[in-house]
Amino acid sequence: MTTASPTQRVNDWLARFDAALKANAVQEAASLFAEDGYWRDFVAFTWNLKTMEGRQAIADMLAATLPGARPSGWTLEGEATEAGGITEGWIRFETAVGRGEGHLRLNAEDKAWTLLTTQYELKGHEEPKGPTREKGVQHGVQKNRQNWLERKQAEEAALGYTQQPYVVIIGGGQGGIGLGARLKRLGVPTIIVEKNPRAGDSWRNRYKSLCLHDPVWYDHMPYLPFPEHWPVFSPKDKIGDWLEMYTKVMELNYWTSTVCKRAQYDDAKGEWTVVVEREGKEVVLRPKQLVLATGMSAVPNIPDIPGIDSFKGDIHHSSRHPGAERYVGKKAVVIGSNNSAHDICADFQEHDVDVTMVQRSSTHIARSETLMELALGGLYSEQAVANGVTTHKADLIFASIPYRVLPAVQVPVYEQMKERDKDFYDRLEKAGFMLDFGEDGSGLFCKYLRRGSGYYIDVGASELIADGKIKLKTGKTARIAENGVVMADGTVLPADVIVLATGYGSMNGWAAQLISQEVADKVGKCWGMGSGTTKDPGPWEGELRNMWKPTQQPGLWFHGGNLHQSRHYSIYLAQQLKARMEGIPTPVYGLQPSYHKG
Amino acid sequence: MTTASPTQRVNDWLARFDAALKANAVQEAASLFAEDGYWRDFVAFTWNLKTMEGRQAIADMLAATLPGARPSGWTLEGEATEAGGITEGWIRFETAVGRGEGHLRLNAEDKAWTLLTTQYELKGHEEPKGPTREKGVQHGVQKNRQNWLERKQAEEAALGYTQQPYVVIIGGGQGGIGLGARLKRLGVPTIIVEKNPRAGDSWRNRYKSLCLHDPVWYDHMPYLPFPEHWPVFSPKDKIGDWLEMYTKVMELNYWTSTVCKRAQYDDAKGEWTVVVEREGKEVVLRPKQLVLATGMSAVPNIPDIPGIDSFKGDIHHSSRHPGAERYVGKKAVVIGSNNSAHDICADFQEHDVDVTMVQRSSTHIARSETLMELALGGLYSEQAVANGVTTHKADLIFASIPYRVLPAVQVPVYEQMKERDKDFYDRLEKAGFMLDFGEDGSGLFCKYLRRGSGYYIDVGASELIADGKIKLKTGKTARIAENGVVMADGTVLPADVIVLATGYGSMNGWAAQLISQEVADKVGKCWGMGSGTTKDPGPWEGELRNMWKPTQQPGLWFHGGNLHQSRHYSIYLAQQLKARMEGIPTPVYGLQPSYHKG
Repeated sequence: MTTASPTQRVNDWLARFDAALKANAVQEAASLFAEDGYWRDFVAFTWNLKTMEGRQAIADMLAATLPGARPSGWTLEGEATEAGGITEGWIRFETAVGRGEGHLRLNAEDKAWTLLTTQYELKGHEEPKGPTREKGVQHGVQKNRQNWLERKQAEEAALGYTQQPYVVIIGGGQGGIGLGARLKRLGVPTIIVEKNPRAGDSWRNRYKSLCLHDPVWYDHMPYLPFPEHWPVFSPKDKIGDWLEMYTKVMELNYWTSTVCKRAQYDDAKGEWTVVVEREGKEVVLRPKQLVLATGMSAVPNIPDIPGIDSFKGDIHHSSRHPGAERYVGKKAVVIGSNNSAHDICADFQEHDVDVTMVQRSSTHIARSETLMELALGGLYSEQAVANGVTTHKADLIFASIPYRVLPAVQVPVYEQMKERDKDFYDRLEKAGFMLDFGEDGSGLFCKYLRRGSGYYIDVGASELIADGKIKLKTGKTARIAENGVVMADGTVLPADVIVLATGYGSMNGWAAQLISQEVADKVGKCWGMGSGTTKDPGPWEGELRNMWKPTQQPGLWFHGGNLHQSRHYSIYLAQQLKARMEGIPTPVYGLQPSYHKG
Repeated sequence: MTTASPTQRVNDWLARFDAALKANAVQEAASLFAEDGYWRDFVAFTWNLKTMEGRQAIADMLAATLPGARPSGWTLEGEATEAGGITEGWIRFETAVGRGEGHLRLNAEDKAWTLLTTQYELKGHEEPKGPTREKGVQHGVQKNRQNWLERKQAEEAALGYTQQPYVVIIGGGQGGIGLGARLKRLGVPTIIVEKNPRAGDSWRNRYKSLCLHDPVWYDHMPYLPFPEHWPVFSPKDKIGDWLEMYTKVMELNYWTSTVCKRAQYDDAKGEWTVVVEREGKEVVLRPKQLVLATGMSAVPNIPDIPGIDSFKGDIHHSSRHPGAERYVGKKAVVIGSNNSAHDICADFQEHDVDVTMVQRSSTHIARSETLMELALGGLYSEQAVANGVTTHKADLIFASIPYRVLPAVQVPVYEQMKERDKDFYDRLEKAGFMLDFGEDGSGLFCKYLRRGSGYYIDVGASELIADGKIKLKTGKTARIAENGVVMADGTVLPADVIVLATGYGSMNGWAAQLISQEVADKVGKCWGMGSGTTKDPGPWEGELRNMWKPTQQPGLWFHGGNLHQSRHYSIYLAQQLKARMEGIPTPVYGLQPSYHKG
């Protein structure tokens, strides 16, 4: 232990680190990390999203990237702080081509336990804002000048026809829109392709009672935060309207009522041919980069239940659920027990539909209020804002915890949750509900990152299950009959309507649909990090598969996730795309192999 | 002089002031002000916008308002500062019904030189935001609940038909929209009536090259500031799109394609009958309060020039100027020499139209960059933001200078401007242009507040005049002939098109059009403060006539001005309307008499 102040200690560490990097002394630099230290890098060194675990991995990465990165200017921002034996601080640095920010944690021996480095801008390609914003008017007089509207209309008329976009984004939900906004600010010509007639429709088209399950502080879009009066949980139509407004105000080239038919990569040209149908007319786009932002909840997973065609009533996937109004007085069976299943069951129950939930496997339930307070509150809440934790700071703090470490950080939160909501969980179990908190007790976020499913953020439906107002049947389904669902134990659940709340496939299913099965297989499964838990087979990969980073298919990128992820990771995807457009070298370190096909 | 710190001195003053007010000792309270001290109050004490000048006026006001106001809780916010013999600080206080904020300046003798008190919220009627924001979702389950969209659609269908709005705002420009947003947040049922098909059209419909003349930091709307990349000077169509988005996101009841036909007040009922035509159908609205937010630039002032009907070419007011494109190669005469005249002349010149400006009287010219730096920079600029001067703080600082004092504060700024831009002004004068800096040298803002005209913020046209590229003719017009303008000196200015950039009438012209000449005359002239300068006859009134405060016509209000004023004063107008809706007593102190008919 040293008697130096936290700030001195971080400054000392940075000075030693800087000297080692400048001397190209990779082993020495690595030795400044704890044996079990982590370095998570977004773009700055690796042109990848990559977590190096342990000194050797760090040394290997540095050996490969230092000559290109040429980092410098490591400085502490503000004061470092110390608590519980960990000293931490915000840092800034530069590379040969970019500017970075990050976060450092030192252990009691002044070794780095975690280092986060992220590149937020390319030198010479900074986003104009604040003091560098555009003037908007060209003072002085120009002959036959075009005004803003004329320039905008000319761009809209040309892009995709006489001028090719550098990027095409398939999917105009919050992911495509947020990334599109960043690319717009960076001057990367981009077209966003959206099948619906209006931006925001992917929210509007969902079931009536849907509101965001994440609170407002977690959901901000880039550049234009929600105003202070925005509700905690945005109703679906309201968030739809916000997104529609956002695309207009951010001046995105957003093609509505446009369907992507197929895409093909020309290796020689390094260019895609993307065929879309825009308002009934075929248009061929030739971007260098293709981003699939079609959403994690976009390719419905329809389970192979025998007899599905024999059913006489209505049967549809949860993504097509029209709302319960039309089924008043009837009988419904909802197969599944995650978020959508619960919301739809509650919707039925509110509309006097006799509804049964079929729970096929155990589910993690977290009460919304408890989750907000215990799991999100420190980073994304009114209190966090009051404490100076801006949205961007919160994003970086969350990112500063390597995925390997995350479960250990999360387990105590969920232990507390179990205790706090003990009565609630007891009542649910008494009603027969099969509960879990993840295989290692690490709860909701880890389940989300590993498999994107397996949980419900309770906003009321669990109480209905505990009360028996939503009937519950656990076990496997055997088949679907003319008039209902037959369970493996022989029970028949009569139904006028069956909703398959059975989740979604991997995003690379979209690559199969739009490009080819071959490319989809080459790229492999999206999402998950190889934790070796259910639906997330190993080997360990340390970052989400294929998300926001180079894939095995040149020019193909995946973007998505919840509003938080779309907001934060769009920075790094935009940096990667912009660098490529500008011809800045982007040597990718540690391109992820593909272990699973989908 | 005391040796106490600025903070101690302000705290001491506030303590003495508080004690005097609590003891109802109005003379003692007044004696805490300098002999030439000022108290400017927005709503908190006077339910009016009112500047008390000198001790007697302050004592009179207190005698009348103290029993109702019952002020308390006077506290300094942060630290006070001292510079040049003036000590100043931000203050908070309460009244019986509301919460207030303001600003205090003490002179070297610890007497108040200026006190600003403003009421920003009513107790028990605070706007829900931050920690008190709505949840957005009703957790738990309600039978047959309406979702956000259904509630919104139900409100839209009912308001104005089966349910009457409390307020109707005529005019849906930035003024009506900003006020409407505040009323929405306060739960005051309001309909905004706008003649154009889309919000923002009043900007879109103007001449092609128009951009805001005020910079972005000055132009923010309430609640939803422009993002950091917004251009300094918003192009007209871009600001139009922003306003359109804003009305939607703020969920305003905004009736487009709706024209107000007539309005009449029923004294007995205390209610208006407002007849509007909405998309071709007559609708009768019965609000308690009617706000004319029709804009200062809404009733064109068409000068009475003989022969105007004999002209064979195109002739129109500047508000109807379609843009210069259609006049390429022709001859244009623009009568007038203010902002629009200059912009339109530049537009003609850019399009190779032979254009002559007719300057009938001297004009104040301020170069945009100089104005931004010298006059606005301290309050509304990137630098001000960096210094912690938020938009709201800047608004309050500006408001803290009583109008009586403003010219003396402004004169040195314009002295500096004259010196800095001496070459520019010399060249303009050499070209024959008649320059002024206001009758007392107080420059642009004072001209704007006194008469709303008489100046041009130069963004390039002045250079064209100096160069002779825009021809200049000074003097009176005699008449309009078949083929041009005949000047009093006999000069004929041949023209294919004549633009009358001759300004606008008083806003009470709208009261005459919509209500009656009688009501318009009773209410009297809007704008100006009785400075005794050109177009602003005395007596001195100390605040803008009839703006944002009670008028001689019960239930009739005027709202408008530039984006800064619309933003800031809408707080106080909204407070007055909300208090009336809630039945909170609003005894108006010092209702302004009407001295001028229009």
